[in-house]
Amino acid sequence: MAGSTYGNIFKITTWGESHGKALGVVVDGCPAGLSLSEEDIQVYLNRRKPGASRFATARSEDDKVEILSGIFEGKTTGTPISMMVKNKDHHSADYSKIASYYRPGHADYTFDEKYGFRDYRGGGRSSGRETIGRVAGGAIAAKILKEFGITLNTYVASIGPISISQNRFDLDEIDKNELNMPDKVAAQEAAAYLETLIKEKNSAGGTVECIVQGLPTGLGDPVFDKLDANLAKAIFSIGAVKGLEIGDGFAAAHTTGLHNNDAFITDAQGHITKKTNHSGGILGGISDGAQLVLRAAFKPTPSIAAPQQTVNKDGEEITIEIVGRHDPLIAARGVVVVEAMTALTLVDALFANASARIDTLKKIYK
Amino acid sequence: MAGSTYGNIFKITTWGESHGKALGVVVDGCPAGLSLSEEDIQVYLNRRKPGASRFATARSEDDKVEILSGIFEGKTTGTPISMMVKNKDHHSADYSKIASYYRPGHADYTFDEKYGFRDYRGGGRSSGRETIGRVAGGAIAAKILKEFGITLNTYVASIGPISISQNRFDLDEIDKNELNMPDKVAAQEAAAYLETLIKEKNSAGGTVECIVQGLPTGLGDPVFDKLDANLAKAIFSIGAVKGLEIGDGFAAAHTTGLHNNDAFITDAQGHITKKTNHSGGILGGISDGAQLVLRAAFKPTPSIAAPQQTVNKDGEEITIEIVGRHDPLIAARGVVVVEAMTALTLVDALFANASARIDTLKKIYK
Amino acid sequence: MAGSTYGNIFKITTWGESHGKALGVVVDGCPAGLSLSEEDIQVYLNRRKPGASRFATARSEDDKVEILSGIFEGKTTGTPISMMVKNKDHHSADYSKIASYYRPGHADYTFDEKYGFRDYRGGGRSSGRETIGRVAGGAIAAKILKEFGITLNTYVASIGPISISQNRFDLDEIDKNELNMPDKVAAQEAAAYLETLIKEKNSAGGTVECIVQGLPTGLGDPVFDKLDANLAKAIFSIGAVKGLEIGDGFAAAHTTGLHNNDAFITDAQGHITKKTNHSGGILGGISDGAQLVLRAAFKPTPSIAAPQQTVNKDGEEITIEIVGRHDPLIAARGVVVVEAMTALTLVDALFANASARIDTLKKIYK
Amino acid sequence: MAGSTYGNIFKITTWGESHGKALGVVVDGCPAGLSLSEEDIQVYLNRRKPGASRFATARSEDDKVEILSGIFEGKTTGTPISMMVKNKDHHSADYSKIASYYRPGHADYTFDEKYGFRDYRGGGRSSGRETIGRVAGGAIAAKILKEFGITLNTYVASIGPISISQNRFDLDEIDKNELNMPDKVAAQEAAAYLETLIKEKNSAGGTVECIVQGLPTGLGDPVFDKLDANLAKAIFSIGAVKGLEIGDGFAAAHTTGLHNNDAFITDAQGHITKKTNHSGGILGGISDGAQLVLRAAFKPTPSIAAPQQTVNKDGEEITIEIVGRHDPLIAARGVVVVEAMTALTLVDALFANASARIDTLKKIYK
Repeated sequence: MAGSTYGNIFKITTWGESHGKALGVVVDGCPAGLSLSEEDIQVYLNRRKPGASRFATARSEDDKVEILSGIFEGKTTGTPISMMVKNKDHHSADYSKIASYYRPGHADYTFDEKYGFRDYRGGGRSSGRETIGRVAGGAIAAKILKEFGITLNTYVASIGPISISQNRFDLDEIDKNELNMPDKVAAQEAAAYLETLIKEKNSAGGTVECIVQGLPTGLGDPVFDKLDANLAKAIFSIGAVKGLEIGDGFAAAHTTGLHNNDAFITDAQGHITKKTNHSGGILGGISDGAQLVLRAAFKPTPSIAAPQQTVNKDGEEITIEIVGRHDPLIAARGVVVVEAMTALTLVDALFANASARIDTLKKIYK
Repeated sequence: MAGSTYGNIFKITTWGESHGKALGVVVDGCPAGLSLSEEDIQVYLNRRKPGASRFATARSEDDKVEILSGIFEGKTTGTPISMMVKNKDHHSADYSKIASYYRPGHADYTFDEKYGFRDYRGGGRSSGRETIGRVAGGAIAAKILKEFGITLNTYVASIGPISISQNRFDLDEIDKNELNMPDKVAAQEAAAYLETLIKEKNSAGGTVECIVQGLPTGLGDPVFDKLDANLAKAIFSIGAVKGLEIGDGFAAAHTTGLHNNDAFITDAQGHITKKTNHSGGILGGISDGAQLVLRAAFKPTPSIAAPQQTVNKDGEEITIEIVGRHDPLIAARGVVVVEAMTALTLVDALFANASARIDTLKKIYK
Repeated sequence: MAGSTYGNIFKITTWGESHGKALGVVVDGCPAGLSLSEEDIQVYLNRRKPGASRFATARSEDDKVEILSGIFEGKTTGTPISMMVKNKDHHSADYSKIASYYRPGHADYTFDEKYGFRDYRGGGRSSGRETIGRVAGGAIAAKILKEFGITLNTYVASIGPISISQNRFDLDEIDKNELNMPDKVAAQEAAAYLETLIKEKNSAGGTVECIVQGLPTGLGDPVFDKLDANLAKAIFSIGAVKGLEIGDGFAAAHTTGLHNNDAFITDAQGHITKKTNHSGGILGGISDGAQLVLRAAFKPTPSIAAPQQTVNKDGEEITIEIVGRHDPLIAARGVVVVEAMTALTLVDALFANASARIDTLKKIYK
Repeated sequence: MAGSTYGNIFKITTWGESHGKALGVVVDGCPAGLSLSEEDIQVYLNRRKPGASRFATARSEDDKVEILSGIFEGKTTGTPISMMVKNKDHHSADYSKIASYYRPGHADYTFDEKYGFRDYRGGGRSSGRETIGRVAGGAIAAKILKEFGITLNTYVASIGPISISQNRFDLDEIDKNELNMPDKVAAQEAAAYLETLIKEKNSAGGTVECIVQGLPTGLGDPVFDKLDANLAKAIFSIGAVKGLEIGDGFAAAHTTGLHNNDAFITDAQGHITKKTNHSGGILGGISDGAQLVLRAAFKPTPSIAAPQQTVNKDGEEITIEIVGRHDPLIAARGVVVVEAMTALTLVDALFANASARIDTLKKIYK
């Protein structure tokens, strides 16, 4: 409830609105002894704003993160890490119009229904800027995972009708194109597609994939806290996400057991592994040692410049045109958010698993 | 963590293994004053076992539920409701084989990796029988929702390559065919398809849809406890689920903003509503007053009779044939589980929303 | 909320009323690999009913515990352990009288106010029989603690005006007298005192102490989850507890810093330890390596046979005499409950502490 | 776990160290529509620093609170309220000495044992400054309670051997003397006592009482979330608290049932009430409509100037003298913290109780 805290052992609590004084996060449950600097967070946060990209809004924010607590002599102390990003241009715009009507595809109407009124400036708490806190927290989670040899790669897998091709799949390509696609050709086609949509005052949906290497077996619990269940909550908590697949996802629903079952085999080193990975690295809610694979569907940016039908607060039907520049695509900005939420979930599962066995605990308390 | 409890205010804690003495659930946080009988639960539980269906295993279980606490003079008392179903045939089978190897698509391997050993009889805790507790709890949740005019309909939307047609869509049909599809023709085609698979010792995946009418606006919280985020955790916590869509789901990722945005309109009674429902009844994580629509992808039954490659506990590669009769389809049995988990999530959101506004609380404490 | 679950990682969920069909508990988060039998639980449960004692009610219950799940081949599997005790004589009494009025010192009135009605048979959920679930769960917690060399001793420290003397303190005495006091002389004096009260149709309060040896340093968190804070919740959740002290408790409030501070010293083995233990083994919410000491105040049994003034449900003032035999003392029965709640809290703190440091976690995941 | 979050529905998450950049709190779950300003918080925060008092340290902090989110047009929006107080003099002192040894009565040793090292500047996270966040959160809780006619009074009830007298008890006196005692004479005696202790480089313990008027019946849950259990956790989470009593507390353990039971009566308006209030307003864990009464024992300030024996980090026994001025008494500063923690707990119970009955919920959703 309340709903601004995520995680059970490793927890983040985010706060802040689009046009408030600042946005931030409190990370609680971070173990002591992790080297951590503002630079570690900033690198991650910078991935939220595709900067020079033609396909991202040019809001003049530096988004400089400040660590306010929880670090001493360059290391985490085990106490809460508070991080803040100040809002710069929070007095600039005129929001009298947006205050009076309900934008289609936005949370204006539902906030009013739930709370009786809303902070309408820039979407308030439902703004994409809310993800600043998640991403700052996710930066720490990702750094912890790295300590255990776990690495994440996240990218745009499709934009509108254009999908990456497995034949051209290249992780190195992700940071080289402005759409974060691991396929140069698809990125070019998608860019052209987006240019067309911009002209048409329209926007595109897209999918984001996250793959994780190095995950130990055994993470996740058998029933409600299945690893995939917690990932699902994490990913669906991102605004604009309308679908999620683990491994083959919906394709598994259209195929047969003979095709979908992953055969267990023994590798050259004598370790048990799987011949295929239709399961996406999770069996029965528990990580199976294979690569974790998840795929999120992002709806198109609801803020579009084309005329749209809606109602104002008095219920009168009106036609609106949303001014200002908006990203034609949410998915590209969603990449680092998906990665952050995945990292947060994995750290929590890693810590929870510490008490799965008596003999594991005896390694700690002897 | 631990992971056998679901919910924040209205909570269920399930327990029990496939071949233990019994399975059950403790429901905590049920308000006082609800009329409730074992019959209310039994009706729901009976939907778990498609009885005479050709497509469901004939395990000789009555699955009679017994309420052990929390009811007095036919009404809930506000204290925990404990419910139990005894296992009957838990001594019958010989599990020495299954104990020695890892079935593809099952949690045998991941349980061993996590816990060091496992209760291998019938899948232990990872068996589908674990859902008895969820469904019993869901029956209460559904009854509470009914008190507030909220109703759920859940059905199989596709089996393998065969999907229901919107033209033939008929909710009344769901209980009339053994596959719980709201489309007579699709059900017949799917039945034929399954017959073929059974002969081939193979199995099929499928999708399950749940639609909810009468949901008030305002349920769900803006950030991590979005209504869709909590639904996602609920649905992905069901074994065999590999994908989830809210509203248009992945289709939204392949379309444009102009198409995906739902225009707000005013209906004949002067209420604000939406022209379309691509969002599936949720905007910004909060229910928007439209019909809630979700769709889950179930993988094919992993237990198939055809020969499969795998390894035994010593890592030796072997070929196995899983004996005994197994459902060729998990999705049909998943229908009531999806409905139960949805109902549980909605009740929790309904209760959480009671303190969203000071003026709402003043209706209670004056 | 709801409030029938205790613990964060190692959790118990209790259920059942005094005169329902059964009472029980689900233990979730118990690590795999612990040897556990019904006998382990029964021994602990038997301590709830001082049997032949003159000072305990002779309710004809066997209170035989049955383990329904979570154990396989004599070991915990890591999945929930469900335990149940059936009620035998739940149809015997006539409760029409008790249903109509509010017993002083009982929860009859507050239950009616909260829930609108109540299961009045034997106190329903507010009965002391509710502790069956806690004690069964506590038996497992105590067994886990033993695996880590942590042992608890719990006893009655005072009854009415009679207190144990430190000069005569003898832990071996606890099980030798029917009042569980570690002081033979005090036990005799208290027995005489209780005999007098029984004749007067009156009852006595008492205090219970719990001391814990072998606790590692470092358990507990610095702010809200201080070890003493969680113990306080645990102990105050026991019906009839009205006070709690850690270490010197209220005496610390009446003394000075010079007296109350425990000097750190180095023992013969070169380990840092403390000269005194006014703190009761906790500093800043974290275990300091010294013996943990807590003391709970139990109010006198509210069910007394002497005439008492009260009101009936219509608010009419009446005089009642509570028939039936009741313990003249709650504290003696409270001993094992205090121990159980302490054990549960310590296990949870032990598990939570596993992720306090990166280097601790690296002992697990290398 | 982690432990910087308190509350279930109305939650606070605090962060910050004594000598970090700032300290603060995120309040989540505050209902929308409450008028709230920085002034509301500041008034409460100012009670933390007895200013001109001879008995409080003169740390040169303004402790000006800044609200960073969650308020729009003077009202709470239902989204998290982030509040921050900047530290001013966080670079001033030389902490090389304190870094090298363990102060008796402080958490230096336990932090090092738990986390491997510590932020030793001014006590780091274990400093009394940590309570800034609690008090800021408590200010909001108290304001919410006021909306429902619930008021709190908190005061020092004893200092060392000097206790307030019920004959001279006067709530108006609390703010008139620098020790916040509701008894002018006792305050004068206590002041003289403290003067003597200061000369002796010593310190005093004390007790703090909180009484609550206007609490509705029915708050709190029957088992683990008893109102007193949650209050106990809240109060024991305050550093330096070593004991707690509800109502008569330990005195109840030394008396008889006949004396301790509160007779129910009907008042002039025909309402059921109690003749006495030994229970302190709680029966069976649920508020009974009478005044809530709790009493906390604070140990003496551990930082004393007199020479003390201790060890350094290498385990060598040394004698230290703690320089700098420290309060000779923690209890007086504890007053507002006890009130804040009580208010937070009551708000949480008030909100949780909204779903105790089906008919209550129907007042909201019709």
